[in-house]
Amino acid sequence: MKIKTSADYMSSLQAINPVIYYKGEKIEDVTVHPATAPHVRAAAMTYALASSDEYHDLATATSHLTGRKVSRFTHVHQNVGDLIKKVKLLRVLGQKTGTCFQRCVGLDGINAVYSVAYEVDRKCGTDYFERFKKWLTDIQDENLMVVGAMTDPKGDRSKSPVDQPDPDQFVRVVERRSDGFVIRGAKLHMTGAVNSHEILIMPTMAMDEKSKDYALVGAIPIDAPGITMVFGRQAGDDRRDKQETIDVGKPRFGAVGGEAMIVFDDVFIPNERIFLNGEAEFTGSIVYRFAAHHRANYGACKTGLMDVLTGAVTYLAQAQGSAKGSHVRDKVTEMIHLSETLYSSSIACSVEGVPTESGAYMVDTMLANVCKQNVTRFHFEVARLAVDLAGGFIATLPSEYDLRSDDVGHLVKKYFTGVADIPVEDRIKIGRLIEAMTGGTAMVESMHGAGSPQAQRIMIFREGDLAKKMSLAKALAGIPSRKKE
Amino acid sequence: MKIKTSADYMSSLQAINPVIYYKGEKIEDVTVHPATAPHVRAAAMTYALASSDEYHDLATATSHLTGRKVSRFTHVHQNVGDLIKKVKLLRVLGQKTGTCFQRCVGLDGINAVYSVAYEVDRKCGTDYFERFKKWLTDIQDENLMVVGAMTDPKGDRSKSPVDQPDPDQFVRVVERRSDGFVIRGAKLHMTGAVNSHEILIMPTMAMDEKSKDYALVGAIPIDAPGITMVFGRQAGDDRRDKQETIDVGKPRFGAVGGEAMIVFDDVFIPNERIFLNGEAEFTGSIVYRFAAHHRANYGACKTGLMDVLTGAVTYLAQAQGSAKGSHVRDKVTEMIHLSETLYSSSIACSVEGVPTESGAYMVDTMLANVCKQNVTRFHFEVARLAVDLAGGFIATLPSEYDLRSDDVGHLVKKYFTGVADIPVEDRIKIGRLIEAMTGGTAMVESMHGAGSPQAQRIMIFREGDLAKKMSLAKALAGIPSRKKE
Amino acid sequence: MKIKTSADYMSSLQAINPVIYYKGEKIEDVTVHPATAPHVRAAAMTYALASSDEYHDLATATSHLTGRKVSRFTHVHQNVGDLIKKVKLLRVLGQKTGTCFQRCVGLDGINAVYSVAYEVDRKCGTDYFERFKKWLTDIQDENLMVVGAMTDPKGDRSKSPVDQPDPDQFVRVVERRSDGFVIRGAKLHMTGAVNSHEILIMPTMAMDEKSKDYALVGAIPIDAPGITMVFGRQAGDDRRDKQETIDVGKPRFGAVGGEAMIVFDDVFIPNERIFLNGEAEFTGSIVYRFAAHHRANYGACKTGLMDVLTGAVTYLAQAQGSAKGSHVRDKVTEMIHLSETLYSSSIACSVEGVPTESGAYMVDTMLANVCKQNVTRFHFEVARLAVDLAGGFIATLPSEYDLRSDDVGHLVKKYFTGVADIPVEDRIKIGRLIEAMTGGTAMVESMHGAGSPQAQRIMIFREGDLAKKMSLAKALAGIPSRKKE
Amino acid sequence: MKIKTSADYMSSLQAINPVIYYKGEKIEDVTVHPATAPHVRAAAMTYALASSDEYHDLATATSHLTGRKVSRFTHVHQNVGDLIKKVKLLRVLGQKTGTCFQRCVGLDGINAVYSVAYEVDRKCGTDYFERFKKWLTDIQDENLMVVGAMTDPKGDRSKSPVDQPDPDQFVRVVERRSDGFVIRGAKLHMTGAVNSHEILIMPTMAMDEKSKDYALVGAIPIDAPGITMVFGRQAGDDRRDKQETIDVGKPRFGAVGGEAMIVFDDVFIPNERIFLNGEAEFTGSIVYRFAAHHRANYGACKTGLMDVLTGAVTYLAQAQGSAKGSHVRDKVTEMIHLSETLYSSSIACSVEGVPTESGAYMVDTMLANVCKQNVTRFHFEVARLAVDLAGGFIATLPSEYDLRSDDVGHLVKKYFTGVADIPVEDRIKIGRLIEAMTGGTAMVESMHGAGSPQAQRIMIFREGDLAKKMSLAKALAGIPSRKKE
Repeated sequence: MKIKTSADYMSSLQAINPVIYYKGEKIEDVTVHPATAPHVRAAAMTYALASSDEYHDLATATSHLTGRKVSRFTHVHQNVGDLIKKVKLLRVLGQKTGTCFQRCVGLDGINAVYSVAYEVDRKCGTDYFERFKKWLTDIQDENLMVVGAMTDPKGDRSKSPVDQPDPDQFVRVVERRSDGFVIRGAKLHMTGAVNSHEILIMPTMAMDEKSKDYALVGAIPIDAPGITMVFGRQAGDDRRDKQETIDVGKPRFGAVGGEAMIVFDDVFIPNERIFLNGEAEFTGSIVYRFAAHHRANYGACKTGLMDVLTGAVTYLAQAQGSAKGSHVRDKVTEMIHLSETLYSSSIACSVEGVPTESGAYMVDTMLANVCKQNVTRFHFEVARLAVDLAGGFIATLPSEYDLRSDDVGHLVKKYFTGVADIPVEDRIKIGRLIEAMTGGTAMVESMHGAGSPQAQRIMIFREGDLAKKMSLAKALAGIPSRKKE
Repeated sequence: MKIKTSADYMSSLQAINPVIYYKGEKIEDVTVHPATAPHVRAAAMTYALASSDEYHDLATATSHLTGRKVSRFTHVHQNVGDLIKKVKLLRVLGQKTGTCFQRCVGLDGINAVYSVAYEVDRKCGTDYFERFKKWLTDIQDENLMVVGAMTDPKGDRSKSPVDQPDPDQFVRVVERRSDGFVIRGAKLHMTGAVNSHEILIMPTMAMDEKSKDYALVGAIPIDAPGITMVFGRQAGDDRRDKQETIDVGKPRFGAVGGEAMIVFDDVFIPNERIFLNGEAEFTGSIVYRFAAHHRANYGACKTGLMDVLTGAVTYLAQAQGSAKGSHVRDKVTEMIHLSETLYSSSIACSVEGVPTESGAYMVDTMLANVCKQNVTRFHFEVARLAVDLAGGFIATLPSEYDLRSDDVGHLVKKYFTGVADIPVEDRIKIGRLIEAMTGGTAMVESMHGAGSPQAQRIMIFREGDLAKKMSLAKALAGIPSRKKE
Repeated sequence: MKIKTSADYMSSLQAINPVIYYKGEKIEDVTVHPATAPHVRAAAMTYALASSDEYHDLATATSHLTGRKVSRFTHVHQNVGDLIKKVKLLRVLGQKTGTCFQRCVGLDGINAVYSVAYEVDRKCGTDYFERFKKWLTDIQDENLMVVGAMTDPKGDRSKSPVDQPDPDQFVRVVERRSDGFVIRGAKLHMTGAVNSHEILIMPTMAMDEKSKDYALVGAIPIDAPGITMVFGRQAGDDRRDKQETIDVGKPRFGAVGGEAMIVFDDVFIPNERIFLNGEAEFTGSIVYRFAAHHRANYGACKTGLMDVLTGAVTYLAQAQGSAKGSHVRDKVTEMIHLSETLYSSSIACSVEGVPTESGAYMVDTMLANVCKQNVTRFHFEVARLAVDLAGGFIATLPSEYDLRSDDVGHLVKKYFTGVADIPVEDRIKIGRLIEAMTGGTAMVESMHGAGSPQAQRIMIFREGDLAKKMSLAKALAGIPSRKKE
Repeated sequence: MKIKTSADYMSSLQAINPVIYYKGEKIEDVTVHPATAPHVRAAAMTYALASSDEYHDLATATSHLTGRKVSRFTHVHQNVGDLIKKVKLLRVLGQKTGTCFQRCVGLDGINAVYSVAYEVDRKCGTDYFERFKKWLTDIQDENLMVVGAMTDPKGDRSKSPVDQPDPDQFVRVVERRSDGFVIRGAKLHMTGAVNSHEILIMPTMAMDEKSKDYALVGAIPIDAPGITMVFGRQAGDDRRDKQETIDVGKPRFGAVGGEAMIVFDDVFIPNERIFLNGEAEFTGSIVYRFAAHHRANYGACKTGLMDVLTGAVTYLAQAQGSAKGSHVRDKVTEMIHLSETLYSSSIACSVEGVPTESGAYMVDTMLANVCKQNVTRFHFEVARLAVDLAGGFIATLPSEYDLRSDDVGHLVKKYFTGVADIPVEDRIKIGRLIEAMTGGTAMVESMHGAGSPQAQRIMIFREGDLAKKMSLAKALAGIPSRKKE
């Protein structure tokens, strides 16, 4: 691993030149710009853990390609143990950053493309798998951060790619050359894009034969010509941009995730970086496998966030003198219960993992979808309980400017003091943390990241093996089996 | 009514001089300062409706004190019809402002103090009722906005007022004079305070005999000497402060409520404005009646907000081409269902209203508490469903600066376009509206305004008449009644 | 009212001769047969309350047809006050019987047919309204119990009436004569049928022009030639049939509802008892109005049942020494909260009631559907909480035969004794009551009576006025209105 | 394993003579008595699977004591793999019997006592561990069914064992002899007791020093002198007792579990069968370990039941022609989602299992409690959805006597026919299956078996490591750690 530490990672980002806009202006250095630096620090934690004694075993793996030690975020899962370690790693990272640390999308893209490329080659006689292993070996050895890019704008949802008024609403090949192809379109909601080194582009849904130009997979550096990124707006970003230290909630890390749209304005991808090119029948597998891995992950990292929220309200209750209340304890119990239920889904879909033809391990698809579906419920309920226990003051607290004001600072301090032995600033800080972690963008991301709730339900129904379940019921009810059913 | 129109109201605020701080600086004119003007406009809607043809009947009433037409927000409810009209008025105001319009706290304070003052006089031979009627006649004739001020800082929640290390954690009388008394302390979370004319101070909980100095009710102008307000920070306030027009979600009204802490630094209140002075045994009634009225109101105004959210996601689904999906329709159905269930609680506690000794009508206490308890559940679930249906783009949308940028504006427009005949700006605006109405402060206010969830549960248990319910069960089970039980 | 008392009602049933089967045998006298007597007693309570001092005002009304005092269960609602009194009456009856008292279906059928008959006549020049008033006057004067018969078997749900392999899956006219028509088919789930005097037959859904033969309304005596009833099986019916006194849960009333299928095997209905005959376009109105009234009622009677359950678990907690536990109090609070929320829907749809063209009052359709939808959630949750608080013993209690056994009775008594001063028999009885009221049939009835949950959702969506809600959202977001939308 | 097959098991039960009462009379042969035979058949399935090819690997294990093949239900878990296989076995058994197969209580008792006996010996110098291994070797070699007996009557819940008016409300030693001790008391809700060979008696809760006489563990044959059992009453037991074949829901297996109270009327236990005798400090560990294992199991067997319910409603929807409805599919999806979420908890607590000092593996206590807590929610919701999808007919269906009646059988058949190609009997049978599996006893057992919901919440709070969670939150909020907290 060339990039070993947090500092290495920072330097590596300063060495590249992606085009990034934010609030109408260009961002020159993501490691210092107040809008992106907190996100960079969260991603840097993935490097920091790998170089720490305590978490080294979780955060790294031995590459099956080279036998060398690599970041787990660039590793192809070789067994159930890998899947479980990944889950534990993600929970720790969630606990330590309280936000998205952004490297899962690359990891999940790598694992999805790896196993499908193998199958495409076997069926179609292509050499995507060898190309991909070569590319991946570089990624592993350099320890690059990869943004897995899947979600297209989609335009009018009632129309397929080829029927859109604007054919660019899904990323597509606009020109084919002997040495590669040229693509156009955009990817939305790209977590960690602005501080990644590479983009791994994948289709957003199963494509049919008519949509062959949309059936593409390829990788390019984030600063390749023709790529423009626009970093999205978030709840609380203005506090962050002003480099506030208390009201921002989490002074070191992004209060919430950071996403960008990536526009591909006729970007050339050379052949050795192309891993699918028109084999439409395999697009479904890429999407489903990426989605399953990604959905499994949400149960781990979000549990980490929910752990933080549970701790935050417990501490706040102590600071306010209300920790002994039976309803306080009951709500904290419920927060723990929901967190651990969610975590259980993440563990279970790992344990029930199975090898693909390539040898790479897949999580159990059903349970991974169940896991993400639970995120869209339990994270909201935990946030609601946190808001309940926090009390109304997180919505009405005067700003940190008032706290420091000569005119009114003493009043803010006097009247927001709780129990005697906890400083008022600590109470305010924990309140701001809860505000940041329960509001707006943070929750939206939890709902839609890794696919909206309905996407999971479709998979859950499909994987439910209702034929078998009907047989069980009929056997118990004494109904004889009949052929035609 | 001297203040008749929205414009009159603006002028009246410019004529007074309250001391208001926000982000470390003083606000000189709340009607134009970007932090407060949206809230002023929401409150002004209460005046505007009263002067409109369509809503005149809902928004005004005939004073039982003077026989003159008054704003319903200064009216003492005389019958069930008054209570129901109020509910309908609040729902309309919620629909038209999408936020808190702030005049309920005064209304509910007036109704609570009115009926209790009558009872204090009967028991103690005081003349609070006459004083209060005189004060109220002025309020009605001038059509002033009153902030009902109840919530104290409370310091260490495990300690009573007199046991706090700092005795000022609850507002108290620090000096008694022949012509009045002097108070010290603060009230937190004061909705509409910065754009009110008067404060009606009430105790925050039932006080015992030891806490007589905390058993006080009085009224003073908002700009009385010794009063300092600090306007609280909110999610999205920076967008508002920069006078953005799209990203703020609601360009005309506050994206969320606006609250202030009010500090009373030895403020004198003359006798004719004192309505309780040490009669601790009546403090409970004031709190319970205020709370019941206020909790009933939440079922009405929040339903208005939920109506807006339901409309917003329906429109957005059209703009994205997904309106026909069965799961979309099902979730919209659920949003309506929860909204109307909530509204029903608000109506029901009004219909079951009963007269107090003074003749003023109280809502049914049980049902009013049930109503608010439902707010703390259904508003969150409706917001969650809105976030679900809105899609992830409300968390990752580029800013309006990017939308207008020469460099990237065309890309933002191209890739956020939905169906052909709805302008991309409209899709973005509705997305921002949903972002504003489902995030952070808006939801916290819904949870804690009018009392935190546990406060309602205590009342629901207390009012549940379990003795009668046990008798019903025993009769049906064939258990003979026994004396001692 | 000819039938004035409970005893009158019993005699009136003994004077008629309906054909009723149960468990393969005929029931000769429903007032004494153990399978039906408890249901008869529950229905008799509607007569008893009308003749009581305490409930006379709720249980009777003044007929707008004759000016005479009539049972409220035969009354056409003349105003909002009537609707509210009905709600209060149903809650009392639910509290006093703990089960279905069966007269609502007739009441709701009367109110639906009354108002639609008026409208049919105005449009089609028929005389159904006069016929119906004449029939209704008799019903009122005699104070007969009417079973409103709506639900058809429906066969294959994916096919319309005329496309069914068996055309009798919906009740239809098989022969038209100058003096009337002959019908064939069946009605299922007919509550109270076996102890009613009259049947009011209505269509089960909106019929189209092709299905004119299915567009019929008519009334006939329960013992008319060609009618056969089969009384359905219920959870716990065997205990009742063996006339057990403890294990049956409710010794006096049916542990759960009692329903029958009514088969019409070529039954003649004379013209004066025909109130719709082929005017298919009006079938929808009959169904929707009946359904709305009936759904409103469920919020009232089921609240009565939930009151009983709340009382039962409270008493049981006392009997077991666990009443002080904070989680016990919290769950009881939740039971009350859900009960009162449900009740509120029932009240609200009454208050928002509106007159039809005939002058008869309709509940608010939206809110009535919301009300029933809540039954299908809250009654289940209250039952679940009751089971939680009751403890496992309600599933494992030895039978009353063991309790009375010389061999083991002393052991049962010894080991099921709770606190010292409450007899063990009382603890067992209250346990059996909870068992009866939370299990099987009772809950199924709550789910499907007055229409399955999805039926309500369709109405809620349809009545949601989404166009208006979209306008509200667009106005707040600053989106200009455009014509074409 | 001496008892190898289902038939062996039947014979073995006929060879012993336990004292069993039911409905006031003695049961002589549990394998043929209609009240117990269905439960015997469900337990026999555990033997049948062990002797089947398909399930042999799941249903058996290699004894760590003898190296011989034993039933998994007598095995001490040696690793995580054992715990996971057990989970999979229980789900299969749930699917194949649709009810409780009763052998978990023995298994969990064995595992709890095994590991604690080891620890007692180490601390106290006793030889319980050797005694227990000897006893267990017999159980394994004979392949006996053991009822783990924990729950005491408890009398007045607000009083401890020694403070009860009747000291026998908890099982206790009433006489100590050189060769053993004599116990008195009772155990309630004993699943599978009447068809077990042995009882393993454990304390019901952590005992203190004052309650040393209640701190006992011992094993005795089910037909030991002084033991009397009373088999409990269940919903639907009368149908079963009459040997109905359709209405009983599940003709072969118990519609619901079968529990008995076991009375110990001065029963002697010899020393070699005593595994705890007054060492009160270890009682807590026995209870917690038994409870954790048992709670983990509930997530597995109940998932099996929920699979059956999901299949049943899917088949019924086909039989009624409603399977294509979007709301039907959505509800089925929800049933699967909840089932798999529950299953995930069961898997996760196994994977996170840890060895005790004895080497026996424990499930993760937190996750096992989370698992059971989910049973008390999800099984109810799945049952509610099943009732929703089944339709009202499961509450109003005529009996099988009517179905076979010459008088009305043809009518029942005609009017309960659904789609053309599914026999009406099949539709009725599946309806009865759903009725049996969603009503009464079945759900109560799910709520309270393995401990009532509040018992799990206490453990979840206790195991939540709130100190660590507070540290996480403080670190993120920028709050410095302070010593004293």
